Amino acid sequence: MNAMKIFILLLSAVLAAGCATVPGTAAKNRVVIQVSDNDPARWNLALNNARNLQADLGAANVEIEIVAYGPGLNMVKTGSAVSNRIDEAVLGGTNIVACENTMANQKVAKEQILPGVNYVGAGVVEIMRRQQQGWSYLRP
Amino acid sequence: MNAMKIFILLLSAVLAAGCATVPGTAAKNRVVIQVSDNDPARWNLALNNARNLQADLGAANVEIEIVAYGPGLNMVKTGSAVSNRIDEAVLGGTNIVACENTMANQKVAKEQILPGVNYVGAGVVEIMRRQQQGWSYLRP
Amino acid sequence: MNAMKIFILLLSAVLAAGCATVPGTAAKNRVVIQVSDNDPARWNLALNNARNLQADLGAANVEIEIVAYGPGLNMVKTGSAVSNRIDEAVLGGTNIVACENTMANQKVAKEQILPGVNYVGAGVVEIMRRQQQGWSYLRP
Repeated sequence: MNAMKIFILLLSAVLAAGCATVPGTAAKNRVVIQVSDNDPARWNLALNNARNLQADLGAANVEIEIVAYGPGLNMVKTGSAVSNRIDEAVLGGTNIVACENTMANQKVAKEQILPGVNYVGAGVVEIMRRQQQGWSYLRP
Repeated sequence: MNAMKIFILLLSAVLAAGCATVPGTAAKNRVVIQVSDNDPARWNLALNNARNLQADLGAANVEIEIVAYGPGLNMVKTGSAVSNRIDEAVLGGTNIVACENTMANQKVAKEQILPGVNYVGAGVVEIMRRQQQGWSYLRP
Repeated sequence: MNAMKIFILLLSAVLAAGCATVPGTAAKNRVVIQVSDNDPARWNLALNNARNLQADLGAANVEIEIVAYGPGLNMVKTGSAVSNRIDEAVLGGTNIVACENTMANQKVAKEQILPGVNYVGAGVVEIMRRQQQGWSYLRP
């Protein structure tokens, strides 16, 4: 019976450390939203989707990241048609990130990116990584 | 050896209950299809995709849910350009759901939604939940 | 203590075979890219996305599959506006596949498909399967 006790302890520990952290089984709400179009209507949809996720789940219960890359980079540039809404989203806890690869290709400097926006090396890699980490994907 | 027998039984039970139900490892075919554009061509693509999944896998072997929200809500309103095809899809076992958030925003009542269509509180939350449950995502 | 040794061996084997291969926990980089629009601008985006994934991660460290189906089939037909880039992508290790269902519907023969392109029975099923296998999804 001593062996059994050790076994049960070990098994519990292994399962807690291993299987229990399988992506998707945890009830964590995490959504990565892709913005790759140069289209203000679609930018507004992305921001609406983020807002509705927060409204429905409670802002504290969902992590949202909007990845702007390729032709979608314009969404996060100063003078963007949705710059006010981006300020609001950032203040509301949505993480908005710009793709540095796209910035280099389009010769856009950080000074031309709205304040509050964060950076990732490559937008497509970020979107892949988030899915690998168990985030849901949304393309408005 | 008695301890070993108990161990094997316990281990089997734990693995059957836990690890064996990990999303993605089961061969269950489940696809959530997003419709968020006000574009009949895209509605037809979504319905084609659903039909092709059923034709290829057998309707009994795949669960399909089409989520109409935002500008895509028009797909499931009475008078929709694809209302006949929606009837067929519903009869064929595809679950088509309308977003109640969008209905409230657009002041659309249930009487204006095609019969056979089901409802979800928030389309974006539904799409996230389905992915959390291991469903594949498709945006036509 | 003998039982414990056997237990630990068994447990290790079971966990190595089972839980350790859960999709998403492995650091394997695999991305399925959907091309379902008849739009050369979007074809170029898909090819850019594939190239940027390889540039950032190293071509040896990421598996990429582009699935052309529905109105997107034109991307991989002879005379496609991006035929040169498709040659380059194939040579660079990206797997580009055409949907045979779409080919049948559009009466397109294999002679009309660019060399180097592979085939799948149904594009939508392929996209579902890849996600079931833990691949990330990208729709440019």
